[in-house]
Amino acid sequence: MNISVLGTGMVGRTIAGRLHELGHTVAIGTRDPQATLARVDPDQMGNPPFTTWHAAHPGVELTTFADAAARASLLVNASSGGATLDVLDLAGADNLRGKVLLDVANPLDFSAGFPPTLSVKDTDSLAEQVQRAYPEVKVVKSLNTLTASLMVDPGSLGESSTVFVSGDDAGAKAEVVELLKSFGHDDVIDLGPLETARGTEMLLPLWLRVMGALGTGQFNFKVVR
Amino acid sequence: MNISVLGTGMVGRTIAGRLHELGHTVAIGTRDPQATLARVDPDQMGNPPFTTWHAAHPGVELTTFADAAARASLLVNASSGGATLDVLDLAGADNLRGKVLLDVANPLDFSAGFPPTLSVKDTDSLAEQVQRAYPEVKVVKSLNTLTASLMVDPGSLGESSTVFVSGDDAGAKAEVVELLKSFGHDDVIDLGPLETARGTEMLLPLWLRVMGALGTGQFNFKVVR
Repeated sequence: MNISVLGTGMVGRTIAGRLHELGHTVAIGTRDPQATLARVDPDQMGNPPFTTWHAAHPGVELTTFADAAARASLLVNASSGGATLDVLDLAGADNLRGKVLLDVANPLDFSAGFPPTLSVKDTDSLAEQVQRAYPEVKVVKSLNTLTASLMVDPGSLGESSTVFVSGDDAGAKAEVVELLKSFGHDDVIDLGPLETARGTEMLLPLWLRVMGALGTGQFNFKVVR
Repeated sequence: MNISVLGTGMVGRTIAGRLHELGHTVAIGTRDPQATLARVDPDQMGNPPFTTWHAAHPGVELTTFADAAARASLLVNASSGGATLDVLDLAGADNLRGKVLLDVANPLDFSAGFPPTLSVKDTDSLAEQVQRAYPEVKVVKSLNTLTASLMVDPGSLGESSTVFVSGDDAGAKAEVVELLKSFGHDDVIDLGPLETARGTEMLLPLWLRVMGALGTGQFNFKVVR
């Protein structure tokens, strides 16, 4: 499948690399490819620059958000939550129309430091904001409840754990669930319409505090029933 | 131990019954014991009136919030979140002083229907509101992330799952953890200071949507790591 990932951070890289490994044709979109390739210093989280990752993953093409969106049938929003609407604007409504958009971002607001708060919650969600802005895009929320490496390799925990999907389009959700299964997810709970993304986005404040208590982000929630 | 439960709803009854079964001296507090005993109809959730439950648990004494608070060394806040500050006011600061208060309530706001939103979140929590109002009470937040029957009998799921504790007083937290273990909880994560209750209270929007998807509240989250 032609899949494009929007965002060159650790989440975008991790998902793009795994999709390519699984045999998909993968592009990764950024605002300005030349600027992305010109960076040589680690980012503010200490992650190596994109070029370091790209050298190890030459099969993933770096391109603009617009070109990335145009060439794919399925898109992954791996931009930061605060940038998502800008990123989609750059991708362009014409390039997005009719596509499935797997939204893995969270609306984190770091303006008051750590831990971040949520810029939208309880009565709305980032996923719904995106859906309202692009009614012809099939938005599916998933994977926003666990760290990047576990998004694409949950089996590394050595025990089954849960991911959730929320979306208004049944076909798009089925497509995303197939993708999740190919990553190794064996417990996918369909929460229902996109409104239910309010629930998974609001898990983040707990996720952050569990990470603080455990000293690692290498964990995931399992719904025991 | 002398333990009092504030609140005669299903959560209060379930916890009080279990504590009594475990050998504690248990009182259950209500606004007006005569009024509580006079009710003969099921509540708005369809639960049987208090008297039905009380007939099966005669060892648990029904009394006022103030008397319940005065006689116990450990209190359980099982009132609804919206009523909690009123309930504690009726219990009385003098009766609460120096006590451990296990707060299992969530700040649910049903004013816009179902699903409820949270009346406080992200930058504050019900637990912190209580702590600020009663600085001499040792507030510990726990058990607010699962349904009443599983609060006191998590083993009925047939698989280990997680509960969280948040609180500023280490001794009070240790006391609560002992109680949790006596209920059968074998995976207790200490999230740290009471501020971390923001995380567990914000789990409720997801909990409600998982309940909707599964059609039952008989589930719990496990932190797989």
